[in-house]
Amino acid sequence: MIVVIQCKDQVGLVAAISGVLAEERLNIVSLREHVDSTENRFFIRVEVDREAPMARLEARLRAVLPIDAVVSINLGTEKKIAVLVTKEYHCLADILVRHHFQTLGASVTCVIGNYPVFEDICRRFEVPFSHISHQDLDKERFEQKIIDVLLGYQPDYIVLAKFMRILSPVFMTNFPSRIINIHHSFLPAFAGANPYRQAFERGVKLIGATAHFVTEELDEGPIIAQQIVPVTHSFSVPDMVKAGKEVESAVLARALRLVFEDRVLVYKNKTVVFE
Amino acid sequence: MIVVIQCKDQVGLVAAISGVLAEERLNIVSLREHVDSTENRFFIRVEVDREAPMARLEARLRAVLPIDAVVSINLGTEKKIAVLVTKEYHCLADILVRHHFQTLGASVTCVIGNYPVFEDICRRFEVPFSHISHQDLDKERFEQKIIDVLLGYQPDYIVLAKFMRILSPVFMTNFPSRIINIHHSFLPAFAGANPYRQAFERGVKLIGATAHFVTEELDEGPIIAQQIVPVTHSFSVPDMVKAGKEVESAVLARALRLVFEDRVLVYKNKTVVFE
Amino acid sequence: MIVVIQCKDQVGLVAAISGVLAEERLNIVSLREHVDSTENRFFIRVEVDREAPMARLEARLRAVLPIDAVVSINLGTEKKIAVLVTKEYHCLADILVRHHFQTLGASVTCVIGNYPVFEDICRRFEVPFSHISHQDLDKERFEQKIIDVLLGYQPDYIVLAKFMRILSPVFMTNFPSRIINIHHSFLPAFAGANPYRQAFERGVKLIGATAHFVTEELDEGPIIAQQIVPVTHSFSVPDMVKAGKEVESAVLARALRLVFEDRVLVYKNKTVVFE
Amino acid sequence: MIVVIQCKDQVGLVAAISGVLAEERLNIVSLREHVDSTENRFFIRVEVDREAPMARLEARLRAVLPIDAVVSINLGTEKKIAVLVTKEYHCLADILVRHHFQTLGASVTCVIGNYPVFEDICRRFEVPFSHISHQDLDKERFEQKIIDVLLGYQPDYIVLAKFMRILSPVFMTNFPSRIINIHHSFLPAFAGANPYRQAFERGVKLIGATAHFVTEELDEGPIIAQQIVPVTHSFSVPDMVKAGKEVESAVLARALRLVFEDRVLVYKNKTVVFE
Repeated sequence: MIVVIQCKDQVGLVAAISGVLAEERLNIVSLREHVDSTENRFFIRVEVDREAPMARLEARLRAVLPIDAVVSINLGTEKKIAVLVTKEYHCLADILVRHHFQTLGASVTCVIGNYPVFEDICRRFEVPFSHISHQDLDKERFEQKIIDVLLGYQPDYIVLAKFMRILSPVFMTNFPSRIINIHHSFLPAFAGANPYRQAFERGVKLIGATAHFVTEELDEGPIIAQQIVPVTHSFSVPDMVKAGKEVESAVLARALRLVFEDRVLVYKNKTVVFE
Repeated sequence: MIVVIQCKDQVGLVAAISGVLAEERLNIVSLREHVDSTENRFFIRVEVDREAPMARLEARLRAVLPIDAVVSINLGTEKKIAVLVTKEYHCLADILVRHHFQTLGASVTCVIGNYPVFEDICRRFEVPFSHISHQDLDKERFEQKIIDVLLGYQPDYIVLAKFMRILSPVFMTNFPSRIINIHHSFLPAFAGANPYRQAFERGVKLIGATAHFVTEELDEGPIIAQQIVPVTHSFSVPDMVKAGKEVESAVLARALRLVFEDRVLVYKNKTVVFE
Repeated sequence: MIVVIQCKDQVGLVAAISGVLAEERLNIVSLREHVDSTENRFFIRVEVDREAPMARLEARLRAVLPIDAVVSINLGTEKKIAVLVTKEYHCLADILVRHHFQTLGASVTCVIGNYPVFEDICRRFEVPFSHISHQDLDKERFEQKIIDVLLGYQPDYIVLAKFMRILSPVFMTNFPSRIINIHHSFLPAFAGANPYRQAFERGVKLIGATAHFVTEELDEGPIIAQQIVPVTHSFSVPDMVKAGKEVESAVLARALRLVFEDRVLVYKNKTVVFE
Repeated sequence: MIVVIQCKDQVGLVAAISGVLAEERLNIVSLREHVDSTENRFFIRVEVDREAPMARLEARLRAVLPIDAVVSINLGTEKKIAVLVTKEYHCLADILVRHHFQTLGASVTCVIGNYPVFEDICRRFEVPFSHISHQDLDKERFEQKIIDVLLGYQPDYIVLAKFMRILSPVFMTNFPSRIINIHHSFLPAFAGANPYRQAFERGVKLIGATAHFVTEELDEGPIIAQQIVPVTHSFSVPDMVKAGKEVESAVLARALRLVFEDRVLVYKNKTVVFE
């Protein structure tokens, strides 16, 4: 069982929390704590060796914590996700394969594409695919159609696996801190369009990718994971795109694992990652 | 102030320890805990925001801990080290430069060389150098001379910065868990002599280096840090040696920083590194 | 078009080869040359901007080269591969997905498994699967059955994607320099069984994987690519296995790309990789 | 001996160049060629096994090359460098140590600082130090004083080893493609002041450093090498600065090695690095 808490910092929090756990006869297998002193914010993740009655445990924890505490207790229930895609397969296929072999740490409830290209691969893996075209629709109606499908599946997280439409702030507010995006660049370098063209013209020696939560501001949400890959003068723009895709799949897979294992805590525009 | 504890595991240890800290009104800035379940061993490192009377704190901690607990409280006193060298400069020079600019996190009390080559560089940095030749001495008398010098300086740690003589188990027992070595290979690959020749002949694509505590068995002590560097077919043996030296300096510097910041706990033949 | 040549070294080889290419009005886009001076061996890979009549070009090249020259001209014909598997899916699935989306640089003609577990996933990707059990067969007959299937498909390369049976030297001689294996460790460390258990017990801070050509001696063939991933004290053996699988998939994908792009030249027990 | 050439691309260049080398009975040990097809530009680096009369060789090469060819023949003469510094020691000390032990691949002729702090460390290594304060001087006179010192030493390259004054375009034109800078960030992210503060506030998971040639536009010259280091939520701004310094020293050392070994060719705003 995993207990994750964040609240404003004060003396004695670890003692209070671990006291409750000890009273419940739960043995702590792994504990990570962090205080963000600029924000006066306390973060903790505790893994204990067995499960305890959840309602009682939460009540006892809340009794010793500040009123603003965010408490999350994970009994090992598998997360449910929805995946939004456009036309690039690499992140989606990686997720579908892990889902199929039950190593994703979550279950893919549905895939939504604004093109129909991945209907076939989803069918092969017996995952529902919804084609919602953005054409002939204004953004509001396009997004409402997506929201309608999502509400039917009630996913814990929405993964933008190379979804190339910009979602509105209104959309975001429906799923706060629950939308994960893979950005085709090492943020904040080359934010915006055509990052590989920019990287090529600048002659960079590294390219990277960033997995992050999506907030109202495009490409500016809390970063979960970043990774780079070396490139050389011999890389054309397509070569860079290809290398970039490899690192995108890898970093998204890593970010999802961290999130699904309850290792990522978000506060304001930053993450605490207890890896 | 940093508190580091290891003992056999049991329920309630975090609660007991953090309870003592809370009673002392110490706020926990950072806490890392690990339980090695195969060994039933508990490890913790706590950073608190200010200092407390050390004797009292230790007594109160011991009162709530198992009898076998190893408790270490670090008030920020700088560690003292001795460095043993032979003829390769790269690790020594890196250490001397950091010592000189006070960024090593420790003070170099003396350098001992079995050749006189580094007398000059030590003089330039005003660090005492002792030339103790192994020639015309049996191992026992050679090591006794080194021990005599070391006892004069009382170092917390002894760093073998490319010291190319094999020390006897007897020597080791004088400084248990206090001797740090940089091994010219990615252990356990190519243990023994001429690792770069072996790596070249095997056509490997990565070479590495390992920083570890020295125990009675050569190259078999607890590993602190490891790092690799890619090599290609175009690397000659000397090129590999050169690349290897870069990674040796880097990994030793990293291992020393971890040890000097009380982040490395040793139990049996393994380390817990709270990075 | 890509021209790859190896032969014994002598003065004037580059001039002779590039002279032939210039006479054929082929413009060199990229050229990599290497001389292994310990072996007195010359290696070259030339990429030119268009195709030329292959038989004539090869004849003209041979006319200026030493008699022992190995000349290979690649007109961009897609390679054909066969994949041998046992029970671990990660490398196979990665290969099947790339095959499906035509980004593998080769075509998977068949998958052979000594267990039937991957019949399903192969069917989903419309790739023929042959179940050849090793049970109730001596090694000779088991291997003959595999060879019979392979001969039907005439693959250019055979990929052992976590195939857990040791193949005999006799098997190897049927496919010299054409069998690629992914080894579940950073060779030469932890060769043999249970490498992750060994790595865990040794407390290593890095684990890795090696893709190599298979020769008669197990785990001793020419290394194509190697990669590592950092691990910590908090990794259990299963965690290490999981991390190891990620790096296995990645390094095998990279090795296959290098081989399929004619970037890997083998001589004796080493590779030259013109990346 | 190393021959480096760049010119506009045309068919037959490798044949022409290698033909000249063969006629001179020079055996090619290593050859790297690259054509930038977007710029129609040809780059080559050839290492041969012995020396030849330089004037004759250059004349014969020029006779077969386009008129615009830039030909450089390196007989192994050690490069001379000057180092400009302000108050951070890490890159300077690394350079001085390598210079002292003759592993830099170049000789440090002088160090110029706009503060006097490194007079001491230069004296320890017997390297001339010039203190040229920027205070009470306008930029023109400040830079003229630096130029006067540099002209006295005639360095091949000028290394800005954390020199924190912005040099004018006029200064640059005195040393085209000969000034190397280490930038305290992974360009183009966080160009400008306080990159670590920016990185901290953005919660990035990687920080990096870039070594590049300096052109008239600040932080925009051709990139030679880049490297990153992972960081976590637990890094304060000073921790990031510290980690950044490690990667700065490492990437500058690597860039200098590449430049001193004639592996870096510059064309317009990009480099070709034949590593």
